[in-house]
Amino acid sequence: MSPTNPNRPHPLSQLSEAEFQCARDIIVGIHGPDTSLFFRSIFAKEPDKASLVPFLEAEHTATLTKDTERPPRLAQVEYDIIRSTEHEHIRSVVNLETEQLVSSDSAGKLFKPSFTQPEFMLFQDVCVHSDMFKEAMAEFTLPEGFTITIDPWPYGGPDESDSPRYMQGLVFARDSSHNNPDANHYAYPIPIIPVLDWVTKKLVRVDRLATGGAEDGLEPHPRSEAPRMLLERNRSADYVPELLDRPLRQNLKPIHISQPEGASFSVHPDGLVEWQKWRFRLSFTPREGAVLHDVCYDNRPILYRLSYSELTVPYGDPRPPYHRKQAFDFGDGGAGRAANILELGCDCLGAIHYLDSFLAAADGSPTPAKSVVCLHEQDNGILWKHTNYRTNRAVVARLRELVVQFVVTLANYEYIFAFKLDLAGGITIETRATGIMSVVPIDEGKSSKYGNVVASGILAQNHQHIFAVRIDPAVDSYRAGDTQVVVEETHGRKMEPRTNPHGNYYEVQRRVVERAQWIDSEPRLNRIVKLENSTKKNVLSGRNVGYKVVSPATQLMLADEESILAKRAPFAKHDFWVTGYRDGEFWAAGEFTNQSREEKGGVGDMVARGDWVTSLEPDDEEAQGEAAQKAGPVVWSVFGFTHNPRVEDWPVMPVEIHQMHLRPADFFSSNPALDVPSVRNNMSVLVPCCDNGTAKQEPKIGAVQRDPLSHLQGTGPDFNPQEAGASVK
Amino acid sequence: MSPTNPNRPHPLSQLSEAEFQCARDIIVGIHGPDTSLFFRSIFAKEPDKASLVPFLEAEHTATLTKDTERPPRLAQVEYDIIRSTEHEHIRSVVNLETEQLVSSDSAGKLFKPSFTQPEFMLFQDVCVHSDMFKEAMAEFTLPEGFTITIDPWPYGGPDESDSPRYMQGLVFARDSSHNNPDANHYAYPIPIIPVLDWVTKKLVRVDRLATGGAEDGLEPHPRSEAPRMLLERNRSADYVPELLDRPLRQNLKPIHISQPEGASFSVHPDGLVEWQKWRFRLSFTPREGAVLHDVCYDNRPILYRLSYSELTVPYGDPRPPYHRKQAFDFGDGGAGRAANILELGCDCLGAIHYLDSFLAAADGSPTPAKSVVCLHEQDNGILWKHTNYRTNRAVVARLRELVVQFVVTLANYEYIFAFKLDLAGGITIETRATGIMSVVPIDEGKSSKYGNVVASGILAQNHQHIFAVRIDPAVDSYRAGDTQVVVEETHGRKMEPRTNPHGNYYEVQRRVVERAQWIDSEPRLNRIVKLENSTKKNVLSGRNVGYKVVSPATQLMLADEESILAKRAPFAKHDFWVTGYRDGEFWAAGEFTNQSREEKGGVGDMVARGDWVTSLEPDDEEAQGEAAQKAGPVVWSVFGFTHNPRVEDWPVMPVEIHQMHLRPADFFSSNPALDVPSVRNNMSVLVPCCDNGTAKQEPKIGAVQRDPLSHLQGTGPDFNPQEAGASVK
Repeated sequence: MSPTNPNRPHPLSQLSEAEFQCARDIIVGIHGPDTSLFFRSIFAKEPDKASLVPFLEAEHTATLTKDTERPPRLAQVEYDIIRSTEHEHIRSVVNLETEQLVSSDSAGKLFKPSFTQPEFMLFQDVCVHSDMFKEAMAEFTLPEGFTITIDPWPYGGPDESDSPRYMQGLVFARDSSHNNPDANHYAYPIPIIPVLDWVTKKLVRVDRLATGGAEDGLEPHPRSEAPRMLLERNRSADYVPELLDRPLRQNLKPIHISQPEGASFSVHPDGLVEWQKWRFRLSFTPREGAVLHDVCYDNRPILYRLSYSELTVPYGDPRPPYHRKQAFDFGDGGAGRAANILELGCDCLGAIHYLDSFLAAADGSPTPAKSVVCLHEQDNGILWKHTNYRTNRAVVARLRELVVQFVVTLANYEYIFAFKLDLAGGITIETRATGIMSVVPIDEGKSSKYGNVVASGILAQNHQHIFAVRIDPAVDSYRAGDTQVVVEETHGRKMEPRTNPHGNYYEVQRRVVERAQWIDSEPRLNRIVKLENSTKKNVLSGRNVGYKVVSPATQLMLADEESILAKRAPFAKHDFWVTGYRDGEFWAAGEFTNQSREEKGGVGDMVARGDWVTSLEPDDEEAQGEAAQKAGPVVWSVFGFTHNPRVEDWPVMPVEIHQMHLRPADFFSSNPALDVPSVRNNMSVLVPCCDNGTAKQEPKIGAVQRDPLSHLQGTGPDFNPQEAGASVK
Repeated sequence: MSPTNPNRPHPLSQLSEAEFQCARDIIVGIHGPDTSLFFRSIFAKEPDKASLVPFLEAEHTATLTKDTERPPRLAQVEYDIIRSTEHEHIRSVVNLETEQLVSSDSAGKLFKPSFTQPEFMLFQDVCVHSDMFKEAMAEFTLPEGFTITIDPWPYGGPDESDSPRYMQGLVFARDSSHNNPDANHYAYPIPIIPVLDWVTKKLVRVDRLATGGAEDGLEPHPRSEAPRMLLERNRSADYVPELLDRPLRQNLKPIHISQPEGASFSVHPDGLVEWQKWRFRLSFTPREGAVLHDVCYDNRPILYRLSYSELTVPYGDPRPPYHRKQAFDFGDGGAGRAANILELGCDCLGAIHYLDSFLAAADGSPTPAKSVVCLHEQDNGILWKHTNYRTNRAVVARLRELVVQFVVTLANYEYIFAFKLDLAGGITIETRATGIMSVVPIDEGKSSKYGNVVASGILAQNHQHIFAVRIDPAVDSYRAGDTQVVVEETHGRKMEPRTNPHGNYYEVQRRVVERAQWIDSEPRLNRIVKLENSTKKNVLSGRNVGYKVVSPATQLMLADEESILAKRAPFAKHDFWVTGYRDGEFWAAGEFTNQSREEKGGVGDMVARGDWVTSLEPDDEEAQGEAAQKAGPVVWSVFGFTHNPRVEDWPVMPVEIHQMHLRPADFFSSNPALDVPSVRNNMSVLVPCCDNGTAKQEPKIGAVQRDPLSHLQGTGPDFNPQEAGASVK
């Protein structure tokens, strides 16, 4: 499998099908035939960092042998024991080599595991067979040929602290008259939200929704006055081409992207990816989707692990029960479980590798999750260029990127997540938000301060998307003590005769982050978070080798800090968090977000425990005496997108793109892309003017060939303006 | 020429060669044969907006006839009258139809016109023949085979208010031993700066430079102690492949981009560009490079004019004379004059149109400026996607962009400027900074707080790049009173029982900009500048049709506000400026930046005159009685990049990319890209694992085909977790 060891999987590789099955069988064997189990997740349990680092160091120094000690191969299995009145949620770790249980713990009743596909599947059927739901629907008259469709949603933050496991549903009608199952049902929202008790499998209530306008208050219309929702047809909400209200444009000529010599990257079956001087291991987890491990350049480590950690989407409509529209798209359901099957020629172009994985069926069997991540190369314009104006010689290299991408569908909405590695040692972490906005009904002709009317009767509510990326650095070393986080700022300085006589001096200030803490962006100070190796200096500059984290400042959580929405997601209040590394701590809002009322075990709690995260010794004795652990730093980068909808976002939204960057900062001893060849692409062709020949301004043959590159010519022929002037007759 | 009129050029088209020559001949004719003239610029003088608007309205309503009144065709000619003791700088406007002078004015002595190529050309020759320069150079011993090379620079902000027209030079040695004129001379900076008086054509002095480290103060070493600059060879500063200190990488396989059916855009000889539903007119000016006029979508105007206005680069090294390292790259020399001749297959890929233009030779003749702007289409990933999880049908459209790009070389440094129009009605304005940093000498082994040592003996000084983009809106109307600027903010709200019982409400606040003013970014408030038509409502949302300006907050001018550097560029202190439209006001830092000591006629002055820029009536009578003009708004977007150099930026810097966006906001009645076909690209190919077959995790044939898209399945087969659990034997 791994080129480093032909016999055993690499410690960071995904579970093989056999390993997956083995993990399931161990658990089934433990419980025996009389216990009903419901499986949620089975995936490779990553080795503890302390036990993996010696292995990685041996691997990268080519001293790995078959005798090298390697961490045991483990799987994590998450499942419920089903009893008549309750389910008990268990997380077990099994050793796939000894086939033994390593550990097992039972989540408390207050912790509700994330929903899986079979659970979501059940919701509509329970509803449509429920008298309570039928009664609520009886208020509404649907036009001929319309049917009911329900999108299950997590319940959000409940009002009561001891609520059972709930699920809520957004109800829509679908125009089935043209017999097209892809008619857009989101165009016909119905103002009720049924709520299901997950253990009893019964609806507990049906919430009615306010549908008024700006001045109509927070409550639903009294039942007698409520609109009976005589939905009108022919709203232009469809996006599938055969139902579109306009013809498809025909004049967009194809752009073909081809790689006749194949891709420049290679992917090994155990997840090792090599591209140019980059090397990393790719895996896929049910919660995170694609994860990059052991990211190295030229065999020097940069990151131990890179992943998306969480994404919360709070809605700003205060009318109950809309305050429970708050998804945690990683914690409540899982981005990996929601990953699209990617298709050749649609989601990326060129020479593409697709990663397959497995997800757990309800009975624990490995279900193929095919083509859930794609890898391809792309051209992103000019990487560097210089034209010597004296010789007119231009040397230009192009910015090639390796893109690791996955797309998730969360009912109505889509996210496109990408990690892009480039030739200059940079990593771009990109999010594109698209899909269909979550909309609710509004009385015809009204407008609202809670959102925008994007089509007749349809209110797209104001909401936010707040992402957390987890960056586990290993800057030129795997040892926990070597990497430190530095906050760098740039400050203007007052004019002062001795040090700043003309007022142009500015100062770069540095502060080593000693303890776990949050950090806010401050563009006016050019505040930057740097990841540095405190023990290795750049041979030229004498500064620590490092990488900087560059992320634009964005608006973060708007909900009142006393609100449940804010308390569930303290991570969403600050741009950066620096925490002390602990094995298995991957979740910015904690492991259990589903129906949480406050964060448990997220970055807020991690900071509160006060870890020391620097290689420096604490400077006072008292601090040294503290119990807080000394640990390597983990950086969490948080960014948001306040989405006050535009009409243009309907019915399917053009991508809203956010990028953050990791860029080397004195990590290398020169531009690492200097050796990229300056190659002329022979496929490029000229496009003339459309009526070329008749009136095109062709340079006059014989005219002085002015060279716009040599505007600063210093070695050309002498040219005296006075003489030039004198030549005017 | 123009399809709208076969006989006369469009009022917004560039000068033809014949028009250019005509303009020059009119001026020469006026002055007669006994006057020496030195020409700087000849370009189309744009019509006054008031006279052009009726023409554009007729053009867009297809009511243009040959009788339609059109503004006269004008040219602006900038030139000097050369006298023995001084040059007088003249700006004249001539009518190309009547061949008459329209206006002529003489810039005062304090205003120094921008440098042209012939002026820059002279600098090195004056230096090398100067005894003062030879004497200064005699201090230094160059190794065998090194020659002297001087980069001319504008003088920056002078210390004295009445300084003559000066030019300064940065001096380098070049290793000519391998007979390669592209050896990188920037690797060998010499610590002197000669200063030339431009009228007498003599050096006035040679400044000596401090070369010490962090603690060595601001003054140069005493002459007796100064290092004699025995430069060492073999610094790895070269970037041309034959001199590179490492082999070129060979394993980057080609990506071919081809358009077998040609480009989707068309360019007419008079500058009209049509692409998808976009239509605009492209011109090129000596100062701005590419300019977009009359930008329309679906025949609805959005922008009257879009251009880069200015770019200032102040350096943060306080040691005199480095405080005069402050370039205005548009005002001091001109981005158009510095534009690269672009080459097929290097600067962009695919099917490319190159725009040609003309620039003035010193004698006023039209000199071809060939291929100075390129246009091409590119694919930028997914534009929108939705997967119906119930049917697994994915519809995905790709983000095609039309890129209008030009590249300028300013001695050592390059900028790549691009305007990108997209299928969703968006415009991205992108800047890439690359090229070779401006470096100065530092004593071997020392380090500095004024910059970073990027190679032995080479200090790359801390500096900033601050750009201004000029946005002249015409949102769905050309009439000045229709477009207004609105500042929109999003504010969280405290929990409150009546209006915000759960604390999740947030409020979008709007403020119409009534008078000319500056606006600062505030990411925490999601502050956005919107361009709206106050007279037209979106038929669905009822809100003003508009566009929003989205630009990340960045650090702006750091120099002390009392410094000359800051006073020359008040524009660089704020993120946005809104000013009242006046014909010909294109310059954020004023028309004359060269050797300025303070801004004259830039955005600061424009704001100070207090124009009313809203369609609303001023709300008090006193305000109505004021003399300030009522004018349509112009928005200036300012963004910066504080460049504290990395070692990786040497010897040629990987691009540092900045983007800002104009995006429709209720301008359209749905996603304007909904009619983009979801086409599968047949050129894409699969990349298997590198040792495929042996160990690849192939999904088991016959296994349950789990579909990761259907995680929220509601209409699939019933699936009861308890039954699933029960199936575990």
